[in-house]
Amino acid sequence: MKSFASDNWSGVCPEIMETLQKVNNEGHIPAYGELDDPVTLSAITRFKEHFGQQSEIFFVYNGTAANVLGVQHLMRPYEAIISAHTAHMNEDECGAPEKISGSKIYTIETEDGKIKPNDVKPFLRSIGFQHHSQPKVISISQVTETGTVYSREEISVLAGFAHSNNMYLHVDGARIANAAVALGTSFKEMITNTGVDVLSFGGTKNGLMFGEVVVFLKPELAKDFEYSRKQNMQLHSKMRFIAAQFERYLTDGLWKKNASTANQMAHLLAAELQKIPQVELTHDVTANGVFVKLPEEIIPKLQKHYYFHVWNPDISEVRLMCSWDTTRKDIDGFIDALMMELLNNEQM
Amino acid sequence: MKSFASDNWSGVCPEIMETLQKVNNEGHIPAYGELDDPVTLSAITRFKEHFGQQSEIFFVYNGTAANVLGVQHLMRPYEAIISAHTAHMNEDECGAPEKISGSKIYTIETEDGKIKPNDVKPFLRSIGFQHHSQPKVISISQVTETGTVYSREEISVLAGFAHSNNMYLHVDGARIANAAVALGTSFKEMITNTGVDVLSFGGTKNGLMFGEVVVFLKPELAKDFEYSRKQNMQLHSKMRFIAAQFERYLTDGLWKKNASTANQMAHLLAAELQKIPQVELTHDVTANGVFVKLPEEIIPKLQKHYYFHVWNPDISEVRLMCSWDTTRKDIDGFIDALMMELLNNEQM
Amino acid sequence: MKSFASDNWSGVCPEIMETLQKVNNEGHIPAYGELDDPVTLSAITRFKEHFGQQSEIFFVYNGTAANVLGVQHLMRPYEAIISAHTAHMNEDECGAPEKISGSKIYTIETEDGKIKPNDVKPFLRSIGFQHHSQPKVISISQVTETGTVYSREEISVLAGFAHSNNMYLHVDGARIANAAVALGTSFKEMITNTGVDVLSFGGTKNGLMFGEVVVFLKPELAKDFEYSRKQNMQLHSKMRFIAAQFERYLTDGLWKKNASTANQMAHLLAAELQKIPQVELTHDVTANGVFVKLPEEIIPKLQKHYYFHVWNPDISEVRLMCSWDTTRKDIDGFIDALMMELLNNEQM
Amino acid sequence: MKSFASDNWSGVCPEIMETLQKVNNEGHIPAYGELDDPVTLSAITRFKEHFGQQSEIFFVYNGTAANVLGVQHLMRPYEAIISAHTAHMNEDECGAPEKISGSKIYTIETEDGKIKPNDVKPFLRSIGFQHHSQPKVISISQVTETGTVYSREEISVLAGFAHSNNMYLHVDGARIANAAVALGTSFKEMITNTGVDVLSFGGTKNGLMFGEVVVFLKPELAKDFEYSRKQNMQLHSKMRFIAAQFERYLTDGLWKKNASTANQMAHLLAAELQKIPQVELTHDVTANGVFVKLPEEIIPKLQKHYYFHVWNPDISEVRLMCSWDTTRKDIDGFIDALMMELLNNEQM
Repeated sequence: MKSFASDNWSGVCPEIMETLQKVNNEGHIPAYGELDDPVTLSAITRFKEHFGQQSEIFFVYNGTAANVLGVQHLMRPYEAIISAHTAHMNEDECGAPEKISGSKIYTIETEDGKIKPNDVKPFLRSIGFQHHSQPKVISISQVTETGTVYSREEISVLAGFAHSNNMYLHVDGARIANAAVALGTSFKEMITNTGVDVLSFGGTKNGLMFGEVVVFLKPELAKDFEYSRKQNMQLHSKMRFIAAQFERYLTDGLWKKNASTANQMAHLLAAELQKIPQVELTHDVTANGVFVKLPEEIIPKLQKHYYFHVWNPDISEVRLMCSWDTTRKDIDGFIDALMMELLNNEQM
Repeated sequence: MKSFASDNWSGVCPEIMETLQKVNNEGHIPAYGELDDPVTLSAITRFKEHFGQQSEIFFVYNGTAANVLGVQHLMRPYEAIISAHTAHMNEDECGAPEKISGSKIYTIETEDGKIKPNDVKPFLRSIGFQHHSQPKVISISQVTETGTVYSREEISVLAGFAHSNNMYLHVDGARIANAAVALGTSFKEMITNTGVDVLSFGGTKNGLMFGEVVVFLKPELAKDFEYSRKQNMQLHSKMRFIAAQFERYLTDGLWKKNASTANQMAHLLAAELQKIPQVELTHDVTANGVFVKLPEEIIPKLQKHYYFHVWNPDISEVRLMCSWDTTRKDIDGFIDALMMELLNNEQM
Repeated sequence: MKSFASDNWSGVCPEIMETLQKVNNEGHIPAYGELDDPVTLSAITRFKEHFGQQSEIFFVYNGTAANVLGVQHLMRPYEAIISAHTAHMNEDECGAPEKISGSKIYTIETEDGKIKPNDVKPFLRSIGFQHHSQPKVISISQVTETGTVYSREEISVLAGFAHSNNMYLHVDGARIANAAVALGTSFKEMITNTGVDVLSFGGTKNGLMFGEVVVFLKPELAKDFEYSRKQNMQLHSKMRFIAAQFERYLTDGLWKKNASTANQMAHLLAAELQKIPQVELTHDVTANGVFVKLPEEIIPKLQKHYYFHVWNPDISEVRLMCSWDTTRKDIDGFIDALMMELLNNEQM
Repeated sequence: MKSFASDNWSGVCPEIMETLQKVNNEGHIPAYGELDDPVTLSAITRFKEHFGQQSEIFFVYNGTAANVLGVQHLMRPYEAIISAHTAHMNEDECGAPEKISGSKIYTIETEDGKIKPNDVKPFLRSIGFQHHSQPKVISISQVTETGTVYSREEISVLAGFAHSNNMYLHVDGARIANAAVALGTSFKEMITNTGVDVLSFGGTKNGLMFGEVVVFLKPELAKDFEYSRKQNMQLHSKMRFIAAQFERYLTDGLWKKNASTANQMAHLLAAELQKIPQVELTHDVTANGVFVKLPEEIIPKLQKHYYFHVWNPDISEVRLMCSWDTTRKDIDGFIDALMMELLNNEQM
């Protein structure tokens, strides 16, 4: 059964499964990526091709850890993160940033999940005032939690603004591949060249089994991060199984293939939904998420065919996520089920 | 190439690889073990068969997390953990318990890595004295870091002592399967029936790819642990891939088969080593680790044939770990290499 | 020179200075309030007269500590505080609650600094959802940061709402005496009888030198708090000097005398200000703070006569705080200076 | 009644009481040491005279806070403190360093409470090993908890050792004045010139009411400490009352007068005790503490005359602390009581 609940309801793509099998066949390999474990070194080399030789690469277990540890490393507890109120870090990590880093999050209300320098400016007033947390890291999500995508120009402007105010720019890239496909850009153009300081590079939502990557774009920021990773319980012993996945992911455009499928299916789904008068798109579709208002009564019925999450119950808005394994047939099936439920609803 | 460095240098056993492939083929499955994900539920059921119906089961990523989060849930920051000085928690987690839980660790010097009630008693003096961390959790490792194994009776006595002093007993079971095989006992007899409160149940060192389990033996102790797991960055999205491994691991005695191999190979290795006059065993072999003193000069040379870790450089002691995939041929090869290096050494 | 900057710019009232001198003359007294230090015991007895015999009393150093430690003791790090966005805890403690307790703060935008059950309700949706911090403590300020005062009925309703949702109610009482005077009520009627769980009882802003009190209204909530106080660096060695101040403060209505003066002076100041057309009150005056809009140009000039803080620069709003030592002459002097600056301003 | 329990059982010396009265008479003064509060500025100036112009001065509430915050500012949570096992920080702060800084403490067993570079060396092996907390701050107590005193040479050697290993040296100076008197040295010679990085400068044990000082000897280490102090709940609002005490303390040799009295009385007490055959000194007396073994039976009886703490119950060792207000008459009274109890004991 397929769903549109989240891109982490899907399994692992065949190329990655094959890679896991292959790297398992290599017998004994040093644990923890230590002692020049060739699998880990090779994956790091691949990352440096995508992000530049100066980048520093650390594998962790999941996106929450990549976000929290990446940001924490750039700040002290009396410094603050600034993010959109809708940011995963603020909304969906059960207070992990606060507990793990000890830092406060200043949040910004947004229309579309994206923040701009002008949104951040009011917080600069706190600089130098000892009673206030000191703004230190601006964190954005690319793709945002509402499915929108920052342009390279927008990222570049935010990075410049951050740096000119003695702050850093972090990017939560749980869906960074979908953003790169949406923008038609490379990771280097979108992240390294725009001046981003640290990136949470995700893969699990795009066909991997587990693992996430903290990418420091400037080597001096990465100093001693290995100790932080260990202390924060994110150092995997059989490291090869994370490293090998990412090496394969960044080879022969696998990341792009998977994300392209997901994005295309989302566009197709949106196009079909727009034909239906009872359905209203709430955000433009750029990556692999489709946000629509549906008649409230049909939601639970439709969820029985294809599960999806209600996003904002106050306005009957739902989120439909496409994945690397979503097919045209899934779209057709969903549209059919929706039409049927709409019809049933009207007949009642 | 094989090594005796650690049981996490080995790969994943074939049964688990097959399971991962199989559970991947099941299409979409709810993330985070939510919405009655059948794979997660089924694995939990299997655990309850082994540990009792009242046990509560939570999957996390690794052993450090299982230790720290399991213990943290039973205490407040002003309460203390009591462990052997050699405990992994104290020695090899880069300060994770202190940072994540905020608690102090009181440590005990031991001969063999095992602690007894009499070792803990001096710390009871701190109870009620507001300037001292209050003893709350006794943590033991089963197998210990020096390869020794607590008997069921010893665990039972420690649990009783803990409870009669308003404390809890935690077991770091990174190698719990090796201990069960060594003792010829079930998990229930060794853990549930002895009165243990919380167990870190490991699998990665015995043939799994990733994942560890926090097992609360008393349901009231588990209350709200799901939030702690999430906040501490240990909730996996594609949960099925941890759950399925453990379900398979606990089925048809796979855990026992793997651990038996490792233990047998360690005994075989020890038997061979004891025949060599220049080699001295420093601990009895009960599980899958062999600790011996070697002539200092040959260590780096021998490591080039089969890598292993120096355990105590002051006395030229090394640790040789056997794994689920160690074979008689590996033992023979190691002994041959050792003999050759000893010979070379004497001729110099 | 006098100011209207804050009630902590004033010194210590004569009765307290005399008490400090007296308790100093008593020679040696056990440190840390231990060994039945009679001064500490006596102060605790006095508190119990005001708050009920079941209350539990702990002296700490300042208001931030009383807030953070009082609240922290009622929750785990994955649980959340809910407060007005303007709360001192959220705005002016440099992220202390987040760092010290590890908890997230959910904030509410308010008109007047006061929150109602309906403001809290949306956060209840997070209960049981493992990705969200779990609401646990509602924290209100009495007097609020905008000078308003909750009625006993309002506190009682909030406490009932909290309890019926498995939450607690905390009151930041940095200016609790001013509130009691404003409401014409006792502490017991306002706090104990309304169902409050923990109170930060302040005195420094009302004539004391240092010290603040965590008052648990229900003894079971106070369990082990002495260890938390010590671990969080808030246990004073020469405890008698905090205890004696509070005993005197709660004797012969000293708290009431000081707070009455401050409140009366605020009302007088407000009455005078309302006569001036260029001045606009932004909040009703109930306790000892007066919030007004002034012509922007005169603010820095007027601050040279009598210093005060700009509250909201966007609307040229300032805060004028009266203290236990504010006199009618101070009010007259301020009004004269204001009139002069208004005149100068118009002539320019 | 006098005691020999601790130098914090005594009250406040007359000069300080007078100063508190005087600074209270100055009317309104900016809170938090802000806006160029002249009292705070003047106290800082005085400190710079004693420690050098480059030193940076921060007032906090107590010694635990000075220790924890001073050390925390020099390290990240994955870095470790190294101290004697007997250090106050390790033994008597209820786990504050671990909770507040997140760091581990590596401890050293000592004869006399003093550590030497050779004691620290074994911990250097952990440097660069990602599973171990990274040694970062060596912390010593001057006077130590067993009453001994480091020579300037010893401090200098430790500082050099720390710096040459990329570490810092912290001094817990709860009794720093007693040490300076014992060594016949200035603070500058003992602390600044020996290369110490950060000092907890105590006064409460030597005649003050409350307050302690974090002295950074190198300005770059102090950067942003004001935010840490606030976030960790150690910023006093009526700052003048801490600042004025310390200014007076450092003026006209008050610190020296008080400490000299305490030290002299300790020497006198020790001299008298050495005349008694049933009493055995366990440490040389250098500062204001005397450690002796007494016949076990008489301890509780003697405590009723003059209270004191049992230090090591296993060997019937007690600690007798002298204070700024201890007199020859107190010594005589204590010796008389001791002789009487010894006599009674023998007659039983």
